[in-house]
Amino acid sequence: MRWWGWGSDAHATRWPPAAERLLRDEIAWSPRATPPVALDDVALPTQGLSARARERLCDAVGDEHVRDDRLARVSHAVGRSYTDLLRIRSGDGSTAPDAVVAPADGPQVAAVLAACAGERIAVVPFGGGTSVVGGVETVRDEVAGAITLDTRRLTAPVGIDRASLLATLPAGLDGPAAEGALRAHGLTLGHFPQSYEHATVGGFVATRSAGQNSTGYGRVDELVRGLHLVAPAGEIDVAPVPASAAGPALRELLVGSEGALGVITRATLRVRRAPSATRTQAWAFPSFAAGAEAFRELVQAGRAPTIARLSDEHETRMTFGMAASDSPGRHAGRLLLRAAAGRAPCLAILAWEGDPRAVRLRAWAALRTLRTHGAVPLGSEAGTRWRAGRFQGPYLRDALLARGVLVETLETATTWSDLPALHAAVGDALRGALSDRGTPPLVACHVSHLYATGASLYFTAIARQEPGAELEQWRAAKEAATEAIVARRATITHHHAVGRAHAPWLEREIGATGLAALRAVKERLDPAGIMNPGKLLPAG
Amino acid sequence: MRWWGWGSDAHATRWPPAAERLLRDEIAWSPRATPPVALDDVALPTQGLSARARERLCDAVGDEHVRDDRLARVSHAVGRSYTDLLRIRSGDGSTAPDAVVAPADGPQVAAVLAACAGERIAVVPFGGGTSVVGGVETVRDEVAGAITLDTRRLTAPVGIDRASLLATLPAGLDGPAAEGALRAHGLTLGHFPQSYEHATVGGFVATRSAGQNSTGYGRVDELVRGLHLVAPAGEIDVAPVPASAAGPALRELLVGSEGALGVITRATLRVRRAPSATRTQAWAFPSFAAGAEAFRELVQAGRAPTIARLSDEHETRMTFGMAASDSPGRHAGRLLLRAAAGRAPCLAILAWEGDPRAVRLRAWAALRTLRTHGAVPLGSEAGTRWRAGRFQGPYLRDALLARGVLVETLETATTWSDLPALHAAVGDALRGALSDRGTPPLVACHVSHLYATGASLYFTAIARQEPGAELEQWRAAKEAATEAIVARRATITHHHAVGRAHAPWLEREIGATGLAALRAVKERLDPAGIMNPGKLLPAG
Repeated sequence: MRWWGWGSDAHATRWPPAAERLLRDEIAWSPRATPPVALDDVALPTQGLSARARERLCDAVGDEHVRDDRLARVSHAVGRSYTDLLRIRSGDGSTAPDAVVAPADGPQVAAVLAACAGERIAVVPFGGGTSVVGGVETVRDEVAGAITLDTRRLTAPVGIDRASLLATLPAGLDGPAAEGALRAHGLTLGHFPQSYEHATVGGFVATRSAGQNSTGYGRVDELVRGLHLVAPAGEIDVAPVPASAAGPALRELLVGSEGALGVITRATLRVRRAPSATRTQAWAFPSFAAGAEAFRELVQAGRAPTIARLSDEHETRMTFGMAASDSPGRHAGRLLLRAAAGRAPCLAILAWEGDPRAVRLRAWAALRTLRTHGAVPLGSEAGTRWRAGRFQGPYLRDALLARGVLVETLETATTWSDLPALHAAVGDALRGALSDRGTPPLVACHVSHLYATGASLYFTAIARQEPGAELEQWRAAKEAATEAIVARRATITHHHAVGRAHAPWLEREIGATGLAALRAVKERLDPAGIMNPGKLLPAG
Repeated sequence: MRWWGWGSDAHATRWPPAAERLLRDEIAWSPRATPPVALDDVALPTQGLSARARERLCDAVGDEHVRDDRLARVSHAVGRSYTDLLRIRSGDGSTAPDAVVAPADGPQVAAVLAACAGERIAVVPFGGGTSVVGGVETVRDEVAGAITLDTRRLTAPVGIDRASLLATLPAGLDGPAAEGALRAHGLTLGHFPQSYEHATVGGFVATRSAGQNSTGYGRVDELVRGLHLVAPAGEIDVAPVPASAAGPALRELLVGSEGALGVITRATLRVRRAPSATRTQAWAFPSFAAGAEAFRELVQAGRAPTIARLSDEHETRMTFGMAASDSPGRHAGRLLLRAAAGRAPCLAILAWEGDPRAVRLRAWAALRTLRTHGAVPLGSEAGTRWRAGRFQGPYLRDALLARGVLVETLETATTWSDLPALHAAVGDALRGALSDRGTPPLVACHVSHLYATGASLYFTAIARQEPGAELEQWRAAKEAATEAIVARRATITHHHAVGRAHAPWLEREIGATGLAALRAVKERLDPAGIMNPGKLLPAG
């Protein structure tokens, strides 16, 4: 991964010509070059590991797996949120580790944790480093140093239980590697977060992630059956039983633990037979409300597609505005505008996966609901185009960041009954906060994960950057949005996790007593407080 | 509830004439009268509440809701396991509380807990009192007294969010009351454990229960979205969001907490539209293995029925042996024996619920799988008969207990790949342990809850009681069975919970570090250690 952005240097950073006009129209933007500093100009913490600490770590994993060169440290200084990239591009490497330590297996993880507990060194587990909530940066309060624990060498062989449709995957596999290993057996995990190309199995589990197909395949917390955690105080191995009434679900205490309790070394997940057919369609709804009602009806009737994504009118406008004039997207856009007949239409993407007959039947069974709610088909081209580009967002962000554009996302979930009010409240909060700073934004939103009792909302804000106050600008918007979320008792995060960004609001979500319960677990499993300090649980 | 058995005195205790022959044939039984002692002969603990403690409790809930008469104490001395009933019928009331205290709402619950924490009085939450794992008896180590906290007055109005298909139900409603309240809105919880007639919403949630329809409707842990807990250290209110990535799932720490962390006062659960059609069918498989394979194929293809129950050959023989000679069951039994053509056939009950068209389609879609695995239809009579009698087991048990028969159940769950080996190992353990004591049993088993990755196994053991050593007799069998379960890393309980019976094995299931994590939560939420001591967590 490039230290200043997304992907490797082999990737081109795409800049769609249409984007320029859209940005001028929507946020009164004009081009401004904001390149990253040179690698050598990134300022790193001066604190280093003691010779003894370094030696203990080398003993644990071997000299060649303790790296403290500049590139290694800078590359592990931040995750991949907008503010992370702002900071590192500006030369702020203050959250870099003293070293990057890569254990090869559970016993080496345990040895690293023992060394760090003994030396009071903070340990930040790091898989693909794609956190957008500050989950992988170091926080150095009350510690004698900080390392990144790189999980990418945790690549023990994949275990397949075909009869039970279970796969035991090591934490260090990234999305394509995990999916590739399963496809070799005709299986799939069906887990495709936007970070899929880089994020790891351990990261999926540690952050309770959801992916673009999770309406059909389930969130990662619905897929995990068993897992193994190495904590400073010991190890926990949860057996992959299909269900249990043996007390509180320990599994659910470790899924989403974000490295604050220990290191997840492997997980046993539910897998499925790889689909032999896929059908992707684009539809236009006359309004966001109509689309949401159609989605609610589908999921509550047990007929949800594998992917169901509904853009609000702003995101719809943005999607087609970004599309090049000769692309299928532009063609669908014209169809959409005609279909909407002067109203502000909303784009929906629906996809079904499975065997060809099931896909045909399920797509057919959704038709009546879609039509009842006024949906008009836009053909399969826009859908296929969305699918082809669905991991491209972060590359585009790099291009925007290089041109003085604020672009950031946040997400939440709530009940169906509160969805319209929450959509309005969060959108208003973002628009209000950024307009107040003189940078009126484009705020776009989509529903992308359907549940019987509610759905997610995913917001994107785009605005001119406020030169010299870029971090404060987004912080104000984020605070306003999160206050709107907690005021309605929606969740502070549907799939991005808590990390450092949401930690201050966790108490608003789970209450003081709930927080005390989690703190008690933390103190028992990590008595020295070395595991990913400052993440998940707010400072006490 | 009768203090010595199941149901109220209005219920007749059924004794099917065919049972007599079956018991003579299978377990060499001959009738022996083993009636309960008189109420006045039940021995109660002499320890009582101090005058000050009693006064504080009366202040909290009102004098009339603090009962310490003999009937109240004896009625709350035990749950409803075989050994519970053995003990109370023999006059052993040593696990009775000093008083039964019934708060009316959350603040009264908090007041009761505060009084008990101050006076070092153990608090045993008690709903329907149907625990079969010793979950509702008092354990008096290191306390100055013990009360039952009767949750039946927690009956705040039911809240319905129709758009989100969510219902907020107070803890004190029993199964029929909860279901009745929902049916008035055209909704259903679909939760029908065998204890349904008496068990409460709070008990469902506190024990992670599953019901007979849970393959279709989901276990209670899959239905709970939000809940409210009153703990000695404070209250936790989990908002009913559809999904969240905000750290470990606090909800999953409270579901299944068995009164050891606090008192669940209400829960918000996923509900469904009440079904307008039901189809129940009986089928015969040529073997247990063939039936299990058919069930696996159905659930992994997303085509599981609402109810899917497969008896092994022993349970099949027992079911039809118990049936009266002129009943539809006997008729189906003849069909079954003919269909099996000399082999040992296995009975399967399948039921579908929903709207009539969906029921028809789903039942039809299962046909090919059933036939591929050799299933032969037995018509709808045996299925309907099973459905009519499905809450009758505990009444029949009373009749067996009065005639010198050991009858007890235990349950577990494992992956599909290990199901055959676990079925054999637990059956062998039960048969071996009881045969070793000179009382060879009938051990019957069924699969009744299907998951994509595995299934439950539910065992029933029937044997002649060992006069004078009835408790030791079952303890030996239970220990042998549970050792077989933990040796294979199956779960010690699929839906009965941990209670006192399984607590000694919890560490084998979740490990020392897992147990330490739960203990840490317990100590934080219940620092005085008054909440349901001796249950869930083994003595430290």
